[in-house]
Amino acid sequence: MNYGIALFPSKKLQDLVNSYRKRYDTNYALVPPHLTLKTAFEATVENLEQITKELRQIADKSAPLTISIKKVSSFSPVNNVIYLKVEPTEELQELHEKLHTGSLESQPEYAFVPHITIGQNLSDDEHSDVLGSLKMLEMKHEEVVDRFHLLYQLENGSWTVYETFLLGKDCN
Amino acid sequence: MNYGIALFPSKKLQDLVNSYRKRYDTNYALVPPHLTLKTAFEATVENLEQITKELRQIADKSAPLTISIKKVSSFSPVNNVIYLKVEPTEELQELHEKLHTGSLESQPEYAFVPHITIGQNLSDDEHSDVLGSLKMLEMKHEEVVDRFHLLYQLENGSWTVYETFLLGKDCN
Repeated sequence: MNYGIALFPSKKLQDLVNSYRKRYDTNYALVPPHLTLKTAFEATVENLEQITKELRQIADKSAPLTISIKKVSSFSPVNNVIYLKVEPTEELQELHEKLHTGSLESQPEYAFVPHITIGQNLSDDEHSDVLGSLKMLEMKHEEVVDRFHLLYQLENGSWTVYETFLLGKDCN
Repeated sequence: MNYGIALFPSKKLQDLVNSYRKRYDTNYALVPPHLTLKTAFEATVENLEQITKELRQIADKSAPLTISIKKVSSFSPVNNVIYLKVEPTEELQELHEKLHTGSLESQPEYAFVPHITIGQNLSDDEHSDVLGSLKMLEMKHEEVVDRFHLLYQLENGSWTVYETFLLGKDCN
């Protein structure tokens, strides 16, 4: 089964992001707006108990995260993905690294660029038009996120939450 | 904000249910296949801490649930909702009741009929056609569910998971 780890920003930010995703993101109906912490990985139901145990330990020891957004950006020319760029912080980078060790050991495909996708699979022309107008927007947002989620993928490509992990239990 | 409480059945059952929902359920893209334990209710972010605290206590004291499905049924003539009927059990009924007391006090709109929706908002003719053919299917499925989820609704009508609650921590 395919699993992934992500955090959901506040409802306010999800609503804003969805107002763009509705038009520009082919994955709009498959998963709520999110920041991916670990891209899709294979695991068996038998491995799941160990994985969730380690995720609980990681979450307990990781403080809540500040998500700061200042601009819209794009992964072009690698691919035509438009996203809200989340300012990289040591906390985000550390959590990302912990989610790639132990039972979760894997080599990330790309360097970790924290982001929330707002458009993808756009034609070159559309990508350039949309990016141009979105870059004009005043985009300043900051919030604290105190949880992440382990999700699994259904056959239709959509994602269901398996479990939520609250951050910072051991940080008080 | 609108909140709801639901459990997700196994991926296997969700995939089966989605194969019908894709054609017959107007809410297909808004939420994964689920069994509703508490329909949409209003809560403020300020109430949320108390609500999740009580949900944790309820979950700790409630044993994992056996979900047994034997047939397809419909809420017609009340409405044209077609669903997998989940056999009512004392455990399901008790959990449903606990989720309507304390901070979660509310009067359910209908008697609790545990079900997983596979079609809704169908015309009378389509409802009757689809129900007729689905009733012919051999439908025998049983599984154990060990968690439920608190979800909130976005402005586009879709649902995001806020937190997962594992059943039975105090039941060993």
